[in-house]
Amino acid sequence: MVDTAPRTTTKTWGQRPAATVPAKPVPGAVGAPIPAPSAAPAPESPEVDVAALGRQLLGTWADIRLAARERAAHPELQRIEGQTMAEHRERVLGQLKILVEQGAVHRAFPKELGGLEDHGGNIAAFEELVIADPSLQIKSGVQWGLFGAAVLHLGTEYHRRAFLPGIMSLDVPGAFAMTETGHGSDVAAIGTTATYDEATQEFVINTPFRGAWKDYLGNAALHGIAAVVFAQLIAKGVNHGVHALYVPLRDADGAFLPGIGGEDDGLKGGLNGIDNGRLHFTNVRVPRENLLNRYGSVTEDGTYSSPIASPGRRFFTMLGTLVQGRVSLDGAATSAAAVALTIAITYGNQRRQFNAASDTDEEVLLDYQRHQRRLLPKLATTYAQTFAHDEFLLKFDAVFSGRADTDDDRQDLETIAAALKPLSTWHALETLQEAREATGGAGFLAENRIVGLRQDLDIYATFEGDNNVLLQLVAKRLLTDYSKQFAKADAGAMARYVVAQTAERAYHGTGLRRLGQTIADFGSTARSVSELRDTNTQRELLTDRVETMIADIAARLRDARKLPKADAAAAFNRNQNELIEAARAHGELLQWEAFTRGLEQTTDPGTRRVLTWLRDLFGLGLVEKHLAWYLIHGRLSPQRAQAVTAYIDRLLERLRPHAQDLVDAFGYTPEHLRSKIASGAEQERQDEARAYYAAQRAAGTLPMPEKTKK
Amino acid sequence: MVDTAPRTTTKTWGQRPAATVPAKPVPGAVGAPIPAPSAAPAPESPEVDVAALGRQLLGTWADIRLAARERAAHPELQRIEGQTMAEHRERVLGQLKILVEQGAVHRAFPKELGGLEDHGGNIAAFEELVIADPSLQIKSGVQWGLFGAAVLHLGTEYHRRAFLPGIMSLDVPGAFAMTETGHGSDVAAIGTTATYDEATQEFVINTPFRGAWKDYLGNAALHGIAAVVFAQLIAKGVNHGVHALYVPLRDADGAFLPGIGGEDDGLKGGLNGIDNGRLHFTNVRVPRENLLNRYGSVTEDGTYSSPIASPGRRFFTMLGTLVQGRVSLDGAATSAAAVALTIAITYGNQRRQFNAASDTDEEVLLDYQRHQRRLLPKLATTYAQTFAHDEFLLKFDAVFSGRADTDDDRQDLETIAAALKPLSTWHALETLQEAREATGGAGFLAENRIVGLRQDLDIYATFEGDNNVLLQLVAKRLLTDYSKQFAKADAGAMARYVVAQTAERAYHGTGLRRLGQTIADFGSTARSVSELRDTNTQRELLTDRVETMIADIAARLRDARKLPKADAAAAFNRNQNELIEAARAHGELLQWEAFTRGLEQTTDPGTRRVLTWLRDLFGLGLVEKHLAWYLIHGRLSPQRAQAVTAYIDRLLERLRPHAQDLVDAFGYTPEHLRSKIASGAEQERQDEARAYYAAQRAAGTLPMPEKTKK
Repeated sequence: MVDTAPRTTTKTWGQRPAATVPAKPVPGAVGAPIPAPSAAPAPESPEVDVAALGRQLLGTWADIRLAARERAAHPELQRIEGQTMAEHRERVLGQLKILVEQGAVHRAFPKELGGLEDHGGNIAAFEELVIADPSLQIKSGVQWGLFGAAVLHLGTEYHRRAFLPGIMSLDVPGAFAMTETGHGSDVAAIGTTATYDEATQEFVINTPFRGAWKDYLGNAALHGIAAVVFAQLIAKGVNHGVHALYVPLRDADGAFLPGIGGEDDGLKGGLNGIDNGRLHFTNVRVPRENLLNRYGSVTEDGTYSSPIASPGRRFFTMLGTLVQGRVSLDGAATSAAAVALTIAITYGNQRRQFNAASDTDEEVLLDYQRHQRRLLPKLATTYAQTFAHDEFLLKFDAVFSGRADTDDDRQDLETIAAALKPLSTWHALETLQEAREATGGAGFLAENRIVGLRQDLDIYATFEGDNNVLLQLVAKRLLTDYSKQFAKADAGAMARYVVAQTAERAYHGTGLRRLGQTIADFGSTARSVSELRDTNTQRELLTDRVETMIADIAARLRDARKLPKADAAAAFNRNQNELIEAARAHGELLQWEAFTRGLEQTTDPGTRRVLTWLRDLFGLGLVEKHLAWYLIHGRLSPQRAQAVTAYIDRLLERLRPHAQDLVDAFGYTPEHLRSKIASGAEQERQDEARAYYAAQRAAGTLPMPEKTKK
Repeated sequence: MVDTAPRTTTKTWGQRPAATVPAKPVPGAVGAPIPAPSAAPAPESPEVDVAALGRQLLGTWADIRLAARERAAHPELQRIEGQTMAEHRERVLGQLKILVEQGAVHRAFPKELGGLEDHGGNIAAFEELVIADPSLQIKSGVQWGLFGAAVLHLGTEYHRRAFLPGIMSLDVPGAFAMTETGHGSDVAAIGTTATYDEATQEFVINTPFRGAWKDYLGNAALHGIAAVVFAQLIAKGVNHGVHALYVPLRDADGAFLPGIGGEDDGLKGGLNGIDNGRLHFTNVRVPRENLLNRYGSVTEDGTYSSPIASPGRRFFTMLGTLVQGRVSLDGAATSAAAVALTIAITYGNQRRQFNAASDTDEEVLLDYQRHQRRLLPKLATTYAQTFAHDEFLLKFDAVFSGRADTDDDRQDLETIAAALKPLSTWHALETLQEAREATGGAGFLAENRIVGLRQDLDIYATFEGDNNVLLQLVAKRLLTDYSKQFAKADAGAMARYVVAQTAERAYHGTGLRRLGQTIADFGSTARSVSELRDTNTQRELLTDRVETMIADIAARLRDARKLPKADAAAAFNRNQNELIEAARAHGELLQWEAFTRGLEQTTDPGTRRVLTWLRDLFGLGLVEKHLAWYLIHGRLSPQRAQAVTAYIDRLLERLRPHAQDLVDAFGYTPEHLRSKIASGAEQERQDEARAYYAAQRAAGTLPMPEKTKK
């Protein structure tokens, strides 16, 4: 396969070069810069250009995504519902071999080994596997995105030549042995040790207690014949922190090598096509060379050295090379939400129930306000995530290609990943659940796909970093950035800031500003709405909330650093919930900004108009969700707050006729959806039933209702 | 089994006679009325009397529940994870036979047939089956709670004698054939017809189109050899609406009888121990006597008669006899939430992760504020539901025993069911999901039970009445009650009311009252908190919101009745979302009132103190959830609104030491939980790990961290 994706350089998050955006083909405009948004007025009854919007949603790596979707449309790569765990595991292993044969999974690897060194495109293709079977996606991710990527990014030339060929060809299925039963999110505290033995020039890998068993590892229960094992590296009595080693696990017959044992994790809530399991090591010896030593080496005599002096920075740098897991979960979760909404909105557009408005015809589900409220805001969020994910992937590609790979770039990428992955994985679960309920009993049947996807996606909320832990990381970064503003300032500047803060709090917090707004608001709901739909108003509301929350927390924690460790931790803990909410607000703002930038790239006036409503629904939906905060802090008057909800109701009415177009633009075919209720079967049933009654009425054979008779 | 539950008469919802409350045994107080709550001051460091609280939580039918739990503790009735659908279905069928042998499922049936005519006790025992296997609960419910209950409540003496013995003994497994592919919540619109043929004195049952296939029916795919079929009853060319008929389905070899066909619904998102399927009928004839004719009869010559003149009222009366499904789902969902919280809180009390406060010891998860925020409010809601469910079951028992069985009683029961079932089934799903995430990867393993329960409980949100549809029913009832206040009033009264409403809205809506509060609030956060913990303040806040929302909607819909049907429907639809939110607020208020009454019955001072905090957490949690409403409508000033969150944070700190006691009081044993992470295994792992490091530190053999060395 040839890489046909546009290659671009991008320096900062969110600034997407216009040339990378696939646009609606316009005669004479091929290859030319995208024209500025048309100044022509948007039509009163806008129409969505579904094909052009679809191209835009596919994003930077559109062609790679289309090729991956073409692959995912083939039954041989798809899940068969109802297989036993054993059957499903074997099937997915076989599917991995198919991916190798199709050359579908080597895009990120070195050119010298047959790869393309195309990191962004690799992730784009990988994400699309979720629509074939999430087990296939994640087992591929274990093999090439974790096990293989650890060798690629943590190893050196020797390791790449020695180990990558077998990994790439799947001759060596392997596990990524980081998590332990006792330590998941806190990787730095794992218990497994790798102690250097100078006498034999080997590392001795050992599991000191039950909690230090490696756990939840794909490929560990059955298929893995090697692993990258993370352990505390001990040399000359000093613990140099967590490092990774390449460790053979099983012999040619599939039996554990001496000193190695394990267990099958057994049945899970989903992803049962993956053989997750546990491993433990009893003084297992590997050659010194098996240390993946890009960030830390041990000489023959046991002397440790590292290009990164600080153990803490070294640890985060090593973990940071594995950020692609979070990147890809953000994309896959967004795809799953898009699939769920395509199914639920298609069905909701055909299914009828209750006849409130007519004596003969029942209402289409999506005409009910409640049904719109349940599905359309989730559609808006899915759009926001789609735009945000493409920018995220561009940032990832810039860092991993080396085009923009400073420490700051890597830290920004980590923070974006930690902000977006939690929001999108939670959103996928909520959307799949709402889609399940919105399609009733039909949604509960495996044949309609939603429940299986939800079961598989469940774990996305806690693996590759627990969502709450990730958001806390984001919050800490925001707090650090905030305090950096004062790092170079003298004590006087800080004092002045504190005074200003206090004044601002008094102004916002006790009703003075709110009071002014209340008076100004009298009789002007129309002006409220007009302001709320303004892009800058939305930006200001969303940005202000993040900044104020962080500033408030920073003010509360200002003196905590001087406290004894336990007291400082307690002070931090008393703000933990709000910290995490601030991080969520930051992630929401990132999504909103990306949606807004996406909107600026939309050229077709009708599409742009509808997308503007959808972006407003997203932005005002966020404001509505946090309405109490805006009221308490005097950012919205009660009247303006009511206008938020009223305007959302109006947006739902406006968007409703375009709902089908907006899900169709995701571009999933029946082969991707594989959902009977989204196949048109419901429309056929409705048409048949209505024709039956119409014919009976026409023929005068419909039995008269008892109450009519009376 | 002998019915040992206290029998009581109760007239109105929520007024539970004191004598029915199992209390902590106090010497000398046995059989005496429960003493008034102790006037002794509650201790500063209260302790929970877990045994006494446990008895109180078991509620009115405590002994029956304990016996049912004893039964559910036996492996033969429990789910085996990982069985195929076919194996699981057969196992559950076998378990139903065990229940028959144990005499565990006949409590509600007539004494003359071996039952006890004990409706409340029957449901109490039935609900507890959920902890053995939700498939067992629901398949039992299909057989005896739907199929059997339809014969019992919709049939007459003939049907009870002819059909109940076979149903009770499971000689005749049967389906409850109400729902169709095309009509779920809107039962009145089903398409299946039962046309009376005077010539043969038979009913001809027919499925006119694909959408009228019966669907999602337990026992239909495999085991059912008969069904109660709901169909439009047509006699002499008149449609008398939906009635039920007893229809044989399969012959002795399990083959469909002539004219009957069907399909297997196949794999589902959960409850795969039940053989749900589809049925269709092509001119299937059953004798005239097979019409379950308690509410509608057809004479030999085809003359229809009914004791209920209005077809609408007749329909709702017939459906109302089947309310027990909703009753039992409310109880079972609450039990599932309690199991989930017992697992997650037990684990959260043992599991450690990250060491912010100490150099050596990691923090227990439940000491993190965020972890408390995730789990303890859900514990409060589960308590509220437990108390509300017992009152609900008392109401049900009063109606079905005939002790308090007026039309009003039945309507009240319907409304309570429609309010509580949605809230508790959604709560179960949210709680199971939070428990899953709070236990991380371990929570995703089937061996820890949470994921299986969540998969099974998923459908509880839409079967026996879609939750959104049920809440809309509640809202319509509230609107009707509201308009009844003016039914007898003259036009002048209505006008005066409207004026008063408008004045009140002006007062609340534009900030005048809020303004007053803001000024009064200055510098008085302590007084705000003191008011918020007051029972009457909480009641007023919660009640006021329901009333105001309904009044506001009623005002907006006041003129809608005069509009043409389609316009009236559109006006209603524009308020649908808020209507459903008003109904939710009503259900929450019911739960809060029940919790408050339960609290009044708690005699131990320490337990009472802790439960008061938990009730406050529930009540203020509701206020916090709807904080924007209270701010917009001037019910809370910004300062008081902030006090709500601040006080919730304080309540979480206070409740945290009692969290284990509060889940232990649910009374589930390891045989009920069957969750490895709640077995104490995590504590053992933590103890082992800490002992290992302590020993190394003591011996001086712990490798020195690199950063310490520097």
